[in-house]
Amino acid sequence: MFITLATDFGTSDYFVGAMRGVILARNPQARIFDITHEIPAHDIRAGAFILLAAYREYPERTVHVAVVDPGVGSARRPILIVTPRYFFIGPDNGLFSYVCEREGEVRAFHLTNERFFRHPVSATFHGRDIFAPVAASLTLGVPPEEFGPPIDDLVQLEPLAPQRVGENEMRARIVHIDRFGNCITNLTRADLTEEMIARGAHLLANGRKISSFRRFFDEGTTDEPFAVWGSAGFLEIVIKLDSAAQKLGLVRGQEIIVRLAGD
Amino acid sequence: MFITLATDFGTSDYFVGAMRGVILARNPQARIFDITHEIPAHDIRAGAFILLAAYREYPERTVHVAVVDPGVGSARRPILIVTPRYFFIGPDNGLFSYVCEREGEVRAFHLTNERFFRHPVSATFHGRDIFAPVAASLTLGVPPEEFGPPIDDLVQLEPLAPQRVGENEMRARIVHIDRFGNCITNLTRADLTEEMIARGAHLLANGRKISSFRRFFDEGTTDEPFAVWGSAGFLEIVIKLDSAAQKLGLVRGQEIIVRLAGD
Amino acid sequence: MFITLATDFGTSDYFVGAMRGVILARNPQARIFDITHEIPAHDIRAGAFILLAAYREYPERTVHVAVVDPGVGSARRPILIVTPRYFFIGPDNGLFSYVCEREGEVRAFHLTNERFFRHPVSATFHGRDIFAPVAASLTLGVPPEEFGPPIDDLVQLEPLAPQRVGENEMRARIVHIDRFGNCITNLTRADLTEEMIARGAHLLANGRKISSFRRFFDEGTTDEPFAVWGSAGFLEIVIKLDSAAQKLGLVRGQEIIVRLAGD
Repeated sequence: MFITLATDFGTSDYFVGAMRGVILARNPQARIFDITHEIPAHDIRAGAFILLAAYREYPERTVHVAVVDPGVGSARRPILIVTPRYFFIGPDNGLFSYVCEREGEVRAFHLTNERFFRHPVSATFHGRDIFAPVAASLTLGVPPEEFGPPIDDLVQLEPLAPQRVGENEMRARIVHIDRFGNCITNLTRADLTEEMIARGAHLLANGRKISSFRRFFDEGTTDEPFAVWGSAGFLEIVIKLDSAAQKLGLVRGQEIIVRLAGD
Repeated sequence: MFITLATDFGTSDYFVGAMRGVILARNPQARIFDITHEIPAHDIRAGAFILLAAYREYPERTVHVAVVDPGVGSARRPILIVTPRYFFIGPDNGLFSYVCEREGEVRAFHLTNERFFRHPVSATFHGRDIFAPVAASLTLGVPPEEFGPPIDDLVQLEPLAPQRVGENEMRARIVHIDRFGNCITNLTRADLTEEMIARGAHLLANGRKISSFRRFFDEGTTDEPFAVWGSAGFLEIVIKLDSAAQKLGLVRGQEIIVRLAGD
Repeated sequence: MFITLATDFGTSDYFVGAMRGVILARNPQARIFDITHEIPAHDIRAGAFILLAAYREYPERTVHVAVVDPGVGSARRPILIVTPRYFFIGPDNGLFSYVCEREGEVRAFHLTNERFFRHPVSATFHGRDIFAPVAASLTLGVPPEEFGPPIDDLVQLEPLAPQRVGENEMRARIVHIDRFGNCITNLTRADLTEEMIARGAHLLANGRKISSFRRFFDEGTTDEPFAVWGSAGFLEIVIKLDSAAQKLGLVRGQEIIVRLAGD
């Protein structure tokens, strides 16, 4: 009965308001919650990360609708993904790659059954005309199989995990910069272990060495950048009460070198 | 039981949060949905368009509250508009012109019965003190007549439709620029028919000729602007994965010439 | 059953979406409403004002969750405040000072009972891991005492009220600048009475004398700044259809002199 929305539509247009209306017109009992509508326009990787960071907080059987859809109207497929705990609806362009990596067990369906669409189906706004009404129908109990044929060749992004390069180096990257300028990397505690850190592992960001690992944002006493395990489960590069992104000139997508020993 | 909100209040102030509270304090069962709060400040035409593009997706009997209200506190009237399918509540300044054009059958009431207001009624925030509580009362089943006397002289904006100028030209305009920089005109398929396009009709925007009509955003192969029938039912001037507004220097309100033949 | 959220998290990250999920996973019946997520980052006074301006519109027993939390993870305490009408949950850093001033009768509890937290508790996102789940539990009927020990030494901001300086002067300040550029002061009708105004009281803002008191925004006929009693109950410095903040170079926190007589 819960539907979440994560899009790059912004909130200044009629887009999101229209999607909500379409859902309610089909299932007045549906409860709709925003994850965000401020995913950078057309940025599939950014959307994939935001979704990854939020989806698991929701109750089982929540329907997560995500729309970052530069290819709307073209040959890219509208899809439904079913995992043991959740449903995901949106374009087949990699937006669900990271959640699929994490969920593991995944079934996918190509949304072709126009009976569940809003008509006329525009060529430019499948969020309103396909994804929203399919989400509403799903919360009404329509079985996934009815929306279209199963598929097993989902578009995948490159994996989220960092790459090991030789014995002493990993190539990580910044996957998100949050409102406060904190730079979230793709390094998990499994990638960069306590043992590695104890042995002197450190980061290189734009040539700047970051070797201080702390526990929370307010802990620093200077304006030196440091690393902290963030709330999404990834290592973040931060500066106390300041924007690390701005101070260090870091942007999303940028490579971060992890030196496991030496410097 | 559904109330939507469309305002120019932004989301950084207490305005919208206060309106929600007022509604819930009167009808705890009310379900409140945002269309947008990012209508450009004081821009009645922009608000009228956003409302037009979203209102019909909602279930019948939805109460649409819209507030773009530079004249709040002055002689402008607070009104309730009743159509066979919907209710509209807000200031009488043209904000509901376009939806009234489309709905056709319209009854209007001047909101004068202070029994339904939040007290004290401020002179600067009728969204909270008049529109929100009246909307809540309406969802509780209060008949429209109880809120005040019927009126039949609503403030009207100039019509949304483009103007025919001679045999071979129409004067259209840009009524909205969306987040992606797509420029939405006031041309519908009834104004600019398939036949006209087949005969060579084209647009002039800032002196630039636009003669390519395509089906969706991703269809273009160059960075040439083209026209596409958008999801709100109007012709849009767009550039593939780029901002047509920025590239062509177009702004909301700007005239677009439609040449029906020749160039 | 109502929970409101007021934060400085913005809406472009996963933060707010995650908080909503945590609440719903614990109480699927909870109804969640945003006051705002655009409180300026780390600005506790701004948050305290927004909360003050909105909280009383909500039904009794609403749980107001507020998060502006630069000290997250440090020694600052997570707290629950109980007043006869409302609950407040967030960090103990002064964010609830103004509402406590107004509510008067206040009990407070230090949130220490980890049984009600989301686990693992991060050091950087107590909004998701402590405040949201405690709010959900509260709406499920858990008594306040169960969340932790009572405390009576809440962190307080300097009082909101202006200061009297000698017989003929008050020192007020700008506590908020709204979306329209209206500058909201901390002067109430009790501070600056009708009698004082009748006797010639006026304001000095950046050396500029403001002696015109009007009833609503649209009343001015020139571009002169004037004062109006705003919807939050405070005197506002405004310019008709323009930004007083920009025109007069005013910023939040700035001192406003009130001269009670002479000039």
